[in-house]
Amino acid sequence: MAYLNENYLKLQAGYLFPEVARRVREFCEANPEAAKRLIRCGIGDVTEPLPRAAIEAMKRAVEELGYSESFRGYGPEQGYEFLRSTIAQHDYRDRDIEIADDEIFISDGSKCDCGYILDILGDQNKVAVPDPVYPVYVDTNVMAGHTGPARKDGSYEGILYLPCTAENNFAPEPPKEHVDLVYLCFPNNPTGAVATREQLKNWVDYAHRHEALILFDAAYEAYINDDPHLNPLPGQGEADAKRQVRVESKIPHSIFEIPGACECAIELRSFSKNGGFTGVRCGFTVMPKSVLARTENGRRLPLHPLWQRRWSTKSNSVSYPVQRGAEALYSQEGHNQARALIDHYMGNAKRLRGAAADAGLKAFGGVNAPYIWVETPDGLTSWEMFDRMLRELNVVITPGAGFGAQGEGYFRISAFNSRQNAEEVARRLKKL
Amino acid sequence: MAYLNENYLKLQAGYLFPEVARRVREFCEANPEAAKRLIRCGIGDVTEPLPRAAIEAMKRAVEELGYSESFRGYGPEQGYEFLRSTIAQHDYRDRDIEIADDEIFISDGSKCDCGYILDILGDQNKVAVPDPVYPVYVDTNVMAGHTGPARKDGSYEGILYLPCTAENNFAPEPPKEHVDLVYLCFPNNPTGAVATREQLKNWVDYAHRHEALILFDAAYEAYINDDPHLNPLPGQGEADAKRQVRVESKIPHSIFEIPGACECAIELRSFSKNGGFTGVRCGFTVMPKSVLARTENGRRLPLHPLWQRRWSTKSNSVSYPVQRGAEALYSQEGHNQARALIDHYMGNAKRLRGAAADAGLKAFGGVNAPYIWVETPDGLTSWEMFDRMLRELNVVITPGAGFGAQGEGYFRISAFNSRQNAEEVARRLKKL
Repeated sequence: MAYLNENYLKLQAGYLFPEVARRVREFCEANPEAAKRLIRCGIGDVTEPLPRAAIEAMKRAVEELGYSESFRGYGPEQGYEFLRSTIAQHDYRDRDIEIADDEIFISDGSKCDCGYILDILGDQNKVAVPDPVYPVYVDTNVMAGHTGPARKDGSYEGILYLPCTAENNFAPEPPKEHVDLVYLCFPNNPTGAVATREQLKNWVDYAHRHEALILFDAAYEAYINDDPHLNPLPGQGEADAKRQVRVESKIPHSIFEIPGACECAIELRSFSKNGGFTGVRCGFTVMPKSVLARTENGRRLPLHPLWQRRWSTKSNSVSYPVQRGAEALYSQEGHNQARALIDHYMGNAKRLRGAAADAGLKAFGGVNAPYIWVETPDGLTSWEMFDRMLRELNVVITPGAGFGAQGEGYFRISAFNSRQNAEEVARRLKKL
Repeated sequence: MAYLNENYLKLQAGYLFPEVARRVREFCEANPEAAKRLIRCGIGDVTEPLPRAAIEAMKRAVEELGYSESFRGYGPEQGYEFLRSTIAQHDYRDRDIEIADDEIFISDGSKCDCGYILDILGDQNKVAVPDPVYPVYVDTNVMAGHTGPARKDGSYEGILYLPCTAENNFAPEPPKEHVDLVYLCFPNNPTGAVATREQLKNWVDYAHRHEALILFDAAYEAYINDDPHLNPLPGQGEADAKRQVRVESKIPHSIFEIPGACECAIELRSFSKNGGFTGVRCGFTVMPKSVLARTENGRRLPLHPLWQRRWSTKSNSVSYPVQRGAEALYSQEGHNQARALIDHYMGNAKRLRGAAADAGLKAFGGVNAPYIWVETPDGLTSWEMFDRMLRELNVVITPGAGFGAQGEGYFRISAFNSRQNAEEVARRLKKL
């Protein structure tokens, strides 16, 4: 009889969001009246219409497929040149980061890329992940057999967890010990924290010292608030901050802003949260040709050809109309529309963060990220808080423990919502 | 330093189609005049416009995303219910095959599914693949570490190859020895062969006897010519065939038409070749809940929950507009338009097969599949024949050796083309 991949049997319960969905469904079935006033601030899913520029581009691309002259079948497996070059130019070269077009690989989303990337890495790597963290980093490593069994608190043997706490502003320092592979995510899901240039430099230094590889998830980079008024550096007053215009002073949007990162980092980006593409599906990976990895016997080889080959053999890239839609986000019109979406969600974040504070809760994040990370009151566990919010306020949040052991005692409020819903949640929060 | 997946280093040269593309590019650069009359019958890529029903459905779906009331973000990770139920009903239950909606998993194409499916299977499985075969089956197993190194003829140690030759009508018998996992593809890429009900029954019997798992790739099922006039069973005259109307007499479209297959088979399907979706990207897997696999210590567990979990953790399914496009292929209008596409390509196949025969070549396939499988003349190797066709006829074909050692001495002509191109290739072929 065929063998199954036993690593799947190590996985705990359902994946976080299906489990949230299950509890919500049960509550709604049992409480049809309360269900009517339910507001979802759980899963980080966008709610507002797609930018018009993306819609028109996708409709044009679909229509092109209706005529012999403009029909397109299989595209390049790594993505169309028109999109790869647009990304490399706008997101990198225009910001003085030297990334070549063929170092950009188009995918059907960052979640998918998190799994795909492990295809080309060895099973021997010692892996470090922040805690709490987007569950996909850990779960894909469990599935790939890179961990031991789960412990009682849901963590897995064999992974080095990097605690992200209020004490370190949810941005962990590099560890003392050696690891081969580090996941970092800034702006962070779930805590909303950002890393300063100095903090990222420490990580790149660590990676060089240990010849480690950094997987940098920048899915939320568009939410970084580049207004220095809102982002005083540590020890810097607001007046200083306003005068501070040098590029280096800002929070990095990309790990490749840090010198030397091109030798030790791979970056994941997504159009889900800036362009509203969660249902349209498009993201990309930046794989510099200068990133090396080793064989068991010590040969050092670039990962780029392996990644190239993975896409050639295992995929035919992303739907053509979707790639045209993503391209349109880089037009002036598309950029402005995406910017308006982000401003909308960050307006929600401001209201929600304020309401949590008014309710006497200790809230983090929500300034450079669409997530507010809140301490549970009254010593409640995070799933207890989830149930209380559901029952008393009819608001769905995400329990911090779903993101890792260090997430216990916290919950995440997502700012992805209509203004009306965000304001209503803010009102209800104050009643807590 | 991070370890890489060394199995990738076992892979031979480029993946077949990029290698074909490279040779064509070099030829065209060196021969700009000849390049102008080049006709591509290499990669099996559709050429004709997308069915209008799919275009309109996709445009409507894109437009829906432009309004708050109809916007959709993340869809169900396994695909939208509207598409899963449509497929299960039309492709299976309407044909008396009991497949539940939640046994259908929507994907971004069969090529991708070939790789994904290995995620949930163990590394201990003994794998059998037909030879010649679609290269992705072998290459994904190499990447996953299920093989030894490559031999000189391009085959890999550790894989059992099932020779598909003119002697067995390119439909191999089950082997004498035990294997855990068998790939089958009918109608076949590259040979265009089909398997009779009896032949598939032999495979299902083998799978039950050996508790093996069959991965059945039915990407070309829509090309099965259900006209009994064209498909006399072995030993049956055309007159008999015309009277033969019982469903069982026809060539199976699905492995699940064979009793007992629901316990031992997984089926892969695609909209690429029936709906022209090679650039739109959509396919699906049928994973019956009754398919079991084993752990190292002998526990027998259904694969369905592992597959469900793979999708939840590693994907957010396929673009919403694409799923609406696929759904539209099942409307009466969409069905008729897809049927017309298939008739078009099969009209090409008839002409190409006829021309190859007229040129004195021995040609197979092209009756129930859009591929004609041709013996090379004059003892040429298949890559020599590739170069000769390119140079003398300015026609791109696919060398048989690219599909496996047993493909040496053959080449594949794809019928995916405009009528004008197919007729021109037919004319040129006769000059050979």
